[in-house]
Amino acid sequence: MSKGITSRAENYSQWYNDIVNRAGLAENSGVRGSMVIKPYGYAIWEKMRDQLDKMFKETGHENAYFPLFIPKSYFTKEASHVDGFAKECAVVTHYRLKTNDKNEVVVDEDAKLEEELIVRPTSETIIWSTYKNWIQSYRDLPILINQWANVVRWEMRTRLFLRTSEFLWQEGHTAHSTMQEAMSETRQMLDIYAEFAENWMAMPVVKGSKSATERFAGALDTLSIEAMMQDGKALQSGTSHFLGQNFAKAFDVKFLNKEGKQEFVWASSWGVSTRLMGALIMAHSDDKGLVLPPKLAPIHVVIVPIYKNNDELEKISTAVKIITTELKAKGISVKYDSNDNNRPGFKFAEYELKGVPVRLAIGPRDLENGNAELVRRDTLEKQIVKQEGIAEYIEKLLEEIQQNIYEKARKHRDSKLFKVDTYDELKAIVNSDGGGFVLAHWDGTPETEAKIKEETKATIRCIPFDSPDEDGVCIYSGNPSKRRVLFAKSY
Amino acid sequence: MSKGITSRAENYSQWYNDIVNRAGLAENSGVRGSMVIKPYGYAIWEKMRDQLDKMFKETGHENAYFPLFIPKSYFTKEASHVDGFAKECAVVTHYRLKTNDKNEVVVDEDAKLEEELIVRPTSETIIWSTYKNWIQSYRDLPILINQWANVVRWEMRTRLFLRTSEFLWQEGHTAHSTMQEAMSETRQMLDIYAEFAENWMAMPVVKGSKSATERFAGALDTLSIEAMMQDGKALQSGTSHFLGQNFAKAFDVKFLNKEGKQEFVWASSWGVSTRLMGALIMAHSDDKGLVLPPKLAPIHVVIVPIYKNNDELEKISTAVKIITTELKAKGISVKYDSNDNNRPGFKFAEYELKGVPVRLAIGPRDLENGNAELVRRDTLEKQIVKQEGIAEYIEKLLEEIQQNIYEKARKHRDSKLFKVDTYDELKAIVNSDGGGFVLAHWDGTPETEAKIKEETKATIRCIPFDSPDEDGVCIYSGNPSKRRVLFAKSY
Repeated sequence: MSKGITSRAENYSQWYNDIVNRAGLAENSGVRGSMVIKPYGYAIWEKMRDQLDKMFKETGHENAYFPLFIPKSYFTKEASHVDGFAKECAVVTHYRLKTNDKNEVVVDEDAKLEEELIVRPTSETIIWSTYKNWIQSYRDLPILINQWANVVRWEMRTRLFLRTSEFLWQEGHTAHSTMQEAMSETRQMLDIYAEFAENWMAMPVVKGSKSATERFAGALDTLSIEAMMQDGKALQSGTSHFLGQNFAKAFDVKFLNKEGKQEFVWASSWGVSTRLMGALIMAHSDDKGLVLPPKLAPIHVVIVPIYKNNDELEKISTAVKIITTELKAKGISVKYDSNDNNRPGFKFAEYELKGVPVRLAIGPRDLENGNAELVRRDTLEKQIVKQEGIAEYIEKLLEEIQQNIYEKARKHRDSKLFKVDTYDELKAIVNSDGGGFVLAHWDGTPETEAKIKEETKATIRCIPFDSPDEDGVCIYSGNPSKRRVLFAKSY
Repeated sequence: MSKGITSRAENYSQWYNDIVNRAGLAENSGVRGSMVIKPYGYAIWEKMRDQLDKMFKETGHENAYFPLFIPKSYFTKEASHVDGFAKECAVVTHYRLKTNDKNEVVVDEDAKLEEELIVRPTSETIIWSTYKNWIQSYRDLPILINQWANVVRWEMRTRLFLRTSEFLWQEGHTAHSTMQEAMSETRQMLDIYAEFAENWMAMPVVKGSKSATERFAGALDTLSIEAMMQDGKALQSGTSHFLGQNFAKAFDVKFLNKEGKQEFVWASSWGVSTRLMGALIMAHSDDKGLVLPPKLAPIHVVIVPIYKNNDELEKISTAVKIITTELKAKGISVKYDSNDNNRPGFKFAEYELKGVPVRLAIGPRDLENGNAELVRRDTLEKQIVKQEGIAEYIEKLLEEIQQNIYEKARKHRDSKLFKVDTYDELKAIVNSDGGGFVLAHWDGTPETEAKIKEETKATIRCIPFDSPDEDGVCIYSGNPSKRRVLFAKSY
């Protein structure tokens, strides 16, 4: 625990792993591809979850819970869905173990399932098979349901939070009587994700539609938010899908409309996952460790006493008690670390590693002067502040830190967002060390998209909503284009 | 939705199913043994979860998340654990599906796992294999971790909430440096469960130790809370296990104690599940439907307008707006049901079915007189109350209802709690229509316990903590006994 972490310049990928491990966020488990989310990492995820849950409920959504297992046949009902999802997945084939005559525990072949069960990679099929029984008339609509759950998608190459076989997420599944309403819902939820990313995660995002190739399997349109990491790569941070009537048709879900006619139901689905933890880490952290936006920090303020003996410690603790009470009254979470085992310098490094937004240190001289030494994590600036009125000061400072972290990320993103008109420029940018987002013209064909991906590893992240109509020519094919799209390498 | 539910007298079991289905709590899914928890049921579970989570955190516990899948070999490391758990479980054997030449989706035999993965029935093994890396010295202890998760135990005969193959629960797993500390933790968590059952669920419970036969597989001692349902049967509502050093030994988890010696770590684990939903329903509900204690009710007050035309509705809605604002300011959740599709009588029945603690009806005459008609769900008593000061009145009434529901359950339980000294009496009680709890002497042998179970279907629910030392003779064997234990039939 005493040595530093790998710097970004030295090895960006190792830097990320070091932060995840050393800040106590997550670790690999004995189960291939599955992670253990450790208490500090889980506390951040809980803050994310609670805020998102609040936003979902404020927009009329309710939570429910659907089965973990999905019968194999369900996946085959929506043709494109099975191709996209049901292939790389965990398959349950038996329901019993037994001890054999060599005293080994083995699968009991007598307990073979008639139909295999798939551990859900996503829940459209099980949910729409349920909605069929819930929907008869337009009066039963809309259904606005969200589920917080674990899902499994078998992955060969995994990275903590970014790509794991099992991950935690939420999946919203809504049913509507009109296309327009389902489309509005799809867009509303993307806007909520963007608001959450920007105002809570302090992470600017580009909102847009995916190209047809990058759509969710079974969707007519997939919207996403794309964030830029510090290495200039994109990280897709949330998706919202307009599913049209595809799942309603696959599961025969009809409703009687106001005119007394049977119609298929319209649908959306949308989700974010523990992947957001990866985004949060890579968007803001530095070579000393995690940098957390205050709104998602489990601990806002850590207080470290500097003392030589018990008498000094006692006096400091008395002053700290007052400060702590004032801070807590403002809803600011505080940790007082008077642990005797570690020296102050060790503690400073430890809380920098954990990204605690504000650190206070108080020694005997500070006590005499009614002061405290304050260091903010985002800039590492040190200042001496008065103990009197410190809670008000820190309250404002936390807002300032939140804002500053966002601004820093925005400036970084904007400095690497390039409008280019040639393929060579695109290649140069996405293959440079610093990476970047490229706005360029594309002819709209999957063939061109595939060629660019093959040659550069850059993909169309999205067709940004705010990309204006503009006549141009495709950087690859030279064919006409009406609009620029966003290219980048991605996680 | 218009017809009533089956009465308890007619068919207790059908009555239970009717409430679960008709109040919108849960339903069976297309996956054998797995349920869908519907939004209203899930909202109640969320209230339970949030309160328990708060109590866990107040006693120093943190949340984390461990993998869903457990390698088969982990289960074999603790001998009694594998016998108790790993047999009836979901086994993942493959990680890919493929389309065969008949265009069917089938399991890809090339994607067979080298070692099968078990879908967790409980997480001791995966967690202790993780703790091994977290614990070196006494400074790393205690570890006080809880996890909210889904688990799977293959069940052949399932009942919504009471016994399902997949269910939701929390499982606490703690690690300690002394036996005493682990035992105190075990008891502390049982006390928290009892407090939650009594003060939130309004359900009296008997606290005690399980007999050796009924212990958790791998535990040295299992504590439980036992509640009585309206049919006089017991429902085990929470368990807390003292695991000794069993799992530490199985996974070789040692720590360096203060004296510099290596010791095995001491452990506890404890859990409650969505089974509590079943307990809540069966403890309080009546022939009109669910009866919810206010502290766990998603809706505290429903307001139904009684009107003939839009003009009347508008005036009522104005008055309701004031009442609603006042109630919400007190943290009381309100639903105003001005839905035009259903008649008041239908709505009354609907909210009685859903167990909403307080119903207000307001018509034009009430409006003139500044009144509202109030019906409390627990007693179904009707009264006329003034609109002025109604929020204060309801705030107190909700407390009274909470208390009354508890008292009613306690009186019912006490009226069926019998101290008996003969086997005949025991048989007569547990086999009677009304059932009951029986406190009787037992010789302490598994043989007698098994015989009584075989002959009467009654089991030893627990050895109550408050059962005094008392010389007696076993009702079955006539051998000496020091203490009465609690017998009952159970869910």
